[in-house]
Amino acid sequence: MTRTVDILITGGTVVTLDERDATFNPGALAVDGDLLLAVGGREEMLAAYRGKQQIDAPDAIIMPGLVNGHTHAAMTCFRGIADDMELMGWLNRYIFPAEARNVNPELAYWGSLLACAEMIRSGTTTFSDMYIFEEETARAAKQAGMRCLLGEVLFDFPSPSFKSPAEGLACTERLIQQWDGDSLIRIMVEPHSLYTCSPDLLKASKALADRYGIPLATHLLENAAEAGQLAEKLGMRATRFLLEGGFLDERFIAFHCVAMDEEDMGIFADRGCKVVHNPESNMKLASGVARVSAMQRRGITVGLGTDGCASNNNLDMFAEMDTAAKLAKVALLDPTAMPARTVLRMATRDGAEVLGMGALVGSLEAGKKADICIIDTDKPHLTPLYDPYSHLVYAVGGADVDSVLIDGKPVMRNRRLVTIDEQEAMRRVRAIALGVSRSLR
Amino acid sequence: MTRTVDILITGGTVVTLDERDATFNPGALAVDGDLLLAVGGREEMLAAYRGKQQIDAPDAIIMPGLVNGHTHAAMTCFRGIADDMELMGWLNRYIFPAEARNVNPELAYWGSLLACAEMIRSGTTTFSDMYIFEEETARAAKQAGMRCLLGEVLFDFPSPSFKSPAEGLACTERLIQQWDGDSLIRIMVEPHSLYTCSPDLLKASKALADRYGIPLATHLLENAAEAGQLAEKLGMRATRFLLEGGFLDERFIAFHCVAMDEEDMGIFADRGCKVVHNPESNMKLASGVARVSAMQRRGITVGLGTDGCASNNNLDMFAEMDTAAKLAKVALLDPTAMPARTVLRMATRDGAEVLGMGALVGSLEAGKKADICIIDTDKPHLTPLYDPYSHLVYAVGGADVDSVLIDGKPVMRNRRLVTIDEQEAMRRVRAIALGVSRSLR
Repeated sequence: MTRTVDILITGGTVVTLDERDATFNPGALAVDGDLLLAVGGREEMLAAYRGKQQIDAPDAIIMPGLVNGHTHAAMTCFRGIADDMELMGWLNRYIFPAEARNVNPELAYWGSLLACAEMIRSGTTTFSDMYIFEEETARAAKQAGMRCLLGEVLFDFPSPSFKSPAEGLACTERLIQQWDGDSLIRIMVEPHSLYTCSPDLLKASKALADRYGIPLATHLLENAAEAGQLAEKLGMRATRFLLEGGFLDERFIAFHCVAMDEEDMGIFADRGCKVVHNPESNMKLASGVARVSAMQRRGITVGLGTDGCASNNNLDMFAEMDTAAKLAKVALLDPTAMPARTVLRMATRDGAEVLGMGALVGSLEAGKKADICIIDTDKPHLTPLYDPYSHLVYAVGGADVDSVLIDGKPVMRNRRLVTIDEQEAMRRVRAIALGVSRSLR
Repeated sequence: MTRTVDILITGGTVVTLDERDATFNPGALAVDGDLLLAVGGREEMLAAYRGKQQIDAPDAIIMPGLVNGHTHAAMTCFRGIADDMELMGWLNRYIFPAEARNVNPELAYWGSLLACAEMIRSGTTTFSDMYIFEEETARAAKQAGMRCLLGEVLFDFPSPSFKSPAEGLACTERLIQQWDGDSLIRIMVEPHSLYTCSPDLLKASKALADRYGIPLATHLLENAAEAGQLAEKLGMRATRFLLEGGFLDERFIAFHCVAMDEEDMGIFADRGCKVVHNPESNMKLASGVARVSAMQRRGITVGLGTDGCASNNNLDMFAEMDTAAKLAKVALLDPTAMPARTVLRMATRDGAEVLGMGALVGSLEAGKKADICIIDTDKPHLTPLYDPYSHLVYAVGGADVDSVLIDGKPVMRNRRLVTIDEQEAMRRVRAIALGVSRSLR
């Protein structure tokens, strides 16, 4: 007896990223509603399931959708506005004035929607976002059909969206209530950093996160200068301050963590805190190299993120995986560091765990949500194919993604977006960018 | 009066990479025969020229074709065969046996043709190649319509294509004579390295290069271990040995140069020697970080290369540019190091100069060969566009290349290859790869 399901996808090589790293070649997946019902070898699956819709991808690698662990989606509007500069000049002459003069709900919405288009096109199905006017980012992600964990960025000083830290916290709480129970959008509390947030704001953020049982996330130890300044300001290392203040638990997510020392890592490992590694941004801003292999050896779960488009300048997680693997090797002078399988897990199941979605997504396993990325390997630069893990990290680029499903729904088929009018999004962002350029003259 | 030319290309932004870094937006180019006849603003060009064929690319960036300064094209056949291993285990367990048991003229031809397909698709118009059976690589490049400087790799020991160093040199000389005066293919002399070639073989190689006035190129100081071993074997640093042996002049090209010290750089600068930087391969093999900015400050001309597909694992020069820029910044902890314009010059006009083709290609200037790359920027990940230099290095990927001309001839139009049957090339290489897999069991 064959069971009828909504969508049957036949491969190709299915790379499940489950606990045993199972692959099926050729493999198949049965999708019903928003769920992955079954994964297995193609012949058995064809005998057991019939799809109302069937997607045949014999030359494809089929993998879980990628999880971008840290970005600022709306900053697509500032992609390439200034590069190759000293950090403080870059921030003070370009990024901060551009934001102060231009960021509004319209920029946040269209910038985020364009980011969703770019992310879907390059195989990302879940992203974590921190920025201003996050209600617009939530709206854009929902429109795009993307899974997202987001929070309004909080500082001590006013932002274009709130006048005081209290208003920022209230805005976050409104988001939490507004999106409660949503199938795709989840909210976290995101104080920007320890150098822009007072202990009081951090405590209020933690209290809000605890009240709703949601993640608390912040930029932390992005470079050595920040680590030194915080140690001076706080009278102790930042991580110890966070430990003593009761901030650190399994729902604490830290972005960057370039300047973590052994003690910091020990504290993070003890408390079950999570880290997101952003190698391309850390390279471009000359922040340094996060010691990801050492963190992983201690048992810290580390995800992977692109950071925003002002410091990368793209949202392609395939490029980020390639860079993460190569950077670790050269930094440690060890070619066995950060092998392809490890990087791929960071960008999928580990990334999902970091965001508190480990039970939901990050691998192709029966019972998880159907977030699926189908990669066309019938191309010169992907020929021959000896090892799909190697290909996914070292050879595939975002442009090789053929189709993407999120929550069981196709959001891209044969490189055509289903949920986003990308011409409209590009037209809107080009108009916004003209204004941004004028505002900096 | 308008003059009729073979092809008129109208932009879009023309990034010339000429000495003054001129750009035209919108710009246009007149191509006649194999030559670029004129470059300028679109309106003036439309008034002065009429094209028998007109290519309109209003949303494009138009730039000189990229120059891949060092690769082993046929090694596409070993793409991803083994990764994340210690260098010696990788070479001894995989690469050397795979080569000894499988490399023959058929593998060299189809592997090289597939590499040409990949390179054209990612905007490369000129490459420099070192491998075995280079007559087949020359034949493939000629078929593809690609510009190439190549040489048979020479060692003290037999290769699959020659029984003795003398035969290897004779093979090189045959190539020189066979391709003399060819519009696309040029030959150089390529002893593999100082650790695989005796001083006698190096001297004979230099004599052959001098006899024909062509480049002499070799792998040099790829990592610290090599530098140490050579110093011990030679009784002095490798660069001093080369200087004292009379090897170093403006036609000397060294690949990698990761372990160069200040004295080495001083010698290279004095003698006008050239360097090719291969950042992704150096990262993946954990070789280290070449001090490219220091070399450039001393006036050494440095090109950029992908190295072969066993150690990268692709031939995408856009990815290589992005990595070169970011790696220099993080290695020096200086975000101003290796700005986009510098990297772009390495991949175009400096790369051409390294290969002795500086008068021929590497920029869009009247009188140079018409080697042109047209990039479609009407895409989410390339929106908005503030600065074409930033985009070319930090946002564009090989898959964004829409059309490519080499020597005035379109070799790709709207992502369709003109000169290569890529389905045939992929079919052949897949069959070869099956044999390679079996040979390693």
